[in-house]
Amino acid sequence: MNFCSHCGFAVSLKVPAGEILPRFVCDRCGTIHYQNPKLVVGCVPEHEGRILLCKRAIAPRLGYWTVPAGYMENGETLQQAAARECQEEALASVDIGSLLTVVHVTHAHQVHVFFRATMRTPAYGAGVESLEAILVRPEEIPWPDLAFPSTEFTLRRYLDDQSSGLELHHFVEFDRRLT
Amino acid sequence: MNFCSHCGFAVSLKVPAGEILPRFVCDRCGTIHYQNPKLVVGCVPEHEGRILLCKRAIAPRLGYWTVPAGYMENGETLQQAAARECQEEALASVDIGSLLTVVHVTHAHQVHVFFRATMRTPAYGAGVESLEAILVRPEEIPWPDLAFPSTEFTLRRYLDDQSSGLELHHFVEFDRRLT
Repeated sequence: MNFCSHCGFAVSLKVPAGEILPRFVCDRCGTIHYQNPKLVVGCVPEHEGRILLCKRAIAPRLGYWTVPAGYMENGETLQQAAARECQEEALASVDIGSLLTVVHVTHAHQVHVFFRATMRTPAYGAGVESLEAILVRPEEIPWPDLAFPSTEFTLRRYLDDQSSGLELHHFVEFDRRLT
Repeated sequence: MNFCSHCGFAVSLKVPAGEILPRFVCDRCGTIHYQNPKLVVGCVPEHEGRILLCKRAIAPRLGYWTVPAGYMENGETLQQAAARECQEEALASVDIGSLLTVVHVTHAHQVHVFFRATMRTPAYGAGVESLEAILVRPEEIPWPDLAFPSTEFTLRRYLDDQSSGLELHHFVEFDRRLT
């Protein structure tokens, strides 16, 4: 951030009065520009024991596999965001179920939230951000070719809980600054 | 948003190529400025059956009561954010427990997340953003003077679950655009 999005003047990184952390503050109009983590929301879509995966057509991790997920938009709920992303990336209509995982991707300033989901029909396909979509049995999941640690964590917790007959939710932090 | 925070030129609201929603796009450098919901994180701090509340010293809802909560910062987890806000607003050190509520405040472009929490000691006080902090029995909660719908929803679910001996989590949407 170099310029104030309100008035167009230069910003400086400084600690505003009464605050603790440095923020980008406009040198002319004084607007404080807070920067906060973004929500990435997705689901594990299931149909008759199979799971819907997408091969990414965009960076980062182009060509690797994920479950449908993306940035939450203003004006929607987490569940609506998860269903919308599934429609966009995998052309599949789902009913969003229980909360599955919350992944703190601290270095990326992101919180990833995943839900269980059920496909309303067996229809699916590759959306514009996907090269391919596949409906796979658990033993067919391409573990070495998953796109993100949050994808693997989410799929493993999904299968663990399915084995134990539970629908738990799981928190984890992946902080590349620590490794 | 009027100006590009990257190059300082004017932005226009337009639908970028390959996208569906209008975004603020820089007319010179082409940077797309996405706007996404912000996370507000808090907890219900408990000590020997009493709950810690803060009276807000800042707008909005100055003078009304809340549980400690505030905007999540980059580089922290939801649980760390909840504990930090409790320290800042109520000068209380807590252990964050289970997920309690997720409140979609759709019109405000916010997602509020609240956890159960246990005070490590009975120490508390008013932080700089609070006029007063109080440790109250459930029957002393000032229901008509709570600051936000998310505060009331969270405290009611907390007490309901306590009565039934469960630690569930609850989703809800408050959308002032619909009322």
